[in-house]
Amino acid sequence: MNAESIAAPVRGYTASKDQLLARLRRIEGQVRGIQGMVADDRYCIDVLTQVAAIQAALDKVALGLLDGHARTCVVEARSEEKEKRTAEMMAAVGRLLRRG
Amino acid sequence: MNAESIAAPVRGYTASKDQLLARLRRIEGQVRGIQGMVADDRYCIDVLTQVAAIQAALDKVALGLLDGHARTCVVEARSEEKEKRTAEMMAAVGRLLRRG
Amino acid sequence: MNAESIAAPVRGYTASKDQLLARLRRIEGQVRGIQGMVADDRYCIDVLTQVAAIQAALDKVALGLLDGHARTCVVEARSEEKEKRTAEMMAAVGRLLRRG
Amino acid sequence: MNAESIAAPVRGYTASKDQLLARLRRIEGQVRGIQGMVADDRYCIDVLTQVAAIQAALDKVALGLLDGHARTCVVEARSEEKEKRTAEMMAAVGRLLRRG
Repeated sequence: MNAESIAAPVRGYTASKDQLLARLRRIEGQVRGIQGMVADDRYCIDVLTQVAAIQAALDKVALGLLDGHARTCVVEARSEEKEKRTAEMMAAVGRLLRRG
Repeated sequence: MNAESIAAPVRGYTASKDQLLARLRRIEGQVRGIQGMVADDRYCIDVLTQVAAIQAALDKVALGLLDGHARTCVVEARSEEKEKRTAEMMAAVGRLLRRG
Repeated sequence: MNAESIAAPVRGYTASKDQLLARLRRIEGQVRGIQGMVADDRYCIDVLTQVAAIQAALDKVALGLLDGHARTCVVEARSEEKEKRTAEMMAAVGRLLRRG
Repeated sequence: MNAESIAAPVRGYTASKDQLLARLRRIEGQVRGIQGMVADDRYCIDVLTQVAAIQAALDKVALGLLDGHARTCVVEARSEEKEKRTAEMMAAVGRLLRRG
């Protein structure tokens, strides 16, 4: 056990695999919840509020994944790989901004 | 019965309740798919591409709901209600733009 | 002078033409400000913060325009026009969500 | 050694300072163009289309800046700085996704 494992700093968007999976399960539940609202003819504005909440939750998942990519795949890549990894990361951010 | 009720035009974002539910079930499946990718340690960029695809699918759901809201709750509302309905719709669009 | 001009409700996103123009002039100034930051080699993260601020300001302009469209072009359109106006409005929201 | 390794390849989002400045001047012109449209009472949907075009152009500027940040400030930072730079970059992406 080294110093780092004792006092790992809590960082903004960093998420462990377990945290990511927990968030995704919660999002799956939210999507099912919206199906119920639509099936019950709930007021469209309330359904839209839930859709926006899921989008925000997915953004957090995306930031957690990007953060992991930056910290490992980019920063720790061998020199000749860094270029490619960075380009992939930017393309991914571009897709997120344009949403798909 | 008039011509329009016989052959309702297929319009941009308009979605029937069944179509909305079908889209939401597909989105639920996509969210589960991402859980599998994370569990299997798939390459983060590939997972991010799937997240962006879900965001795009949710945007389509949101536009279908907004369209329904505009066509029924706003346009067909009684005069004194139109103001309130329009304000609600704009607030919903604002939440979608800010994503939550 | 009628009752409405005495007590016009302050509404969420509604903006007068003068307010829209004032906001757009401020945004123009912000864009020029960013040019100065880039020319002076200011730290990229600080420039990005300004870009995000302009995006937020443009979203507010867009919501003001949409609100005006909904209140006048859609709600007050003749029956046979409402359909077309609503479809145009949804297409515009779609472009804003996908950003262009 | 081939021509390409001599002349750095044009990469996805990478933009030189001159390119960034040229894009920002074009965006400034677009913002002024919208002021003219609003002043002339042009159809709101046409103005909204222009707003979405500016958002897309700003996204490209943001991706160019992020790319530069990743390639220099993050990848080339000293080991103890990389963590901080990556966290700043993620916070910036988060602000762009939430738009401000």
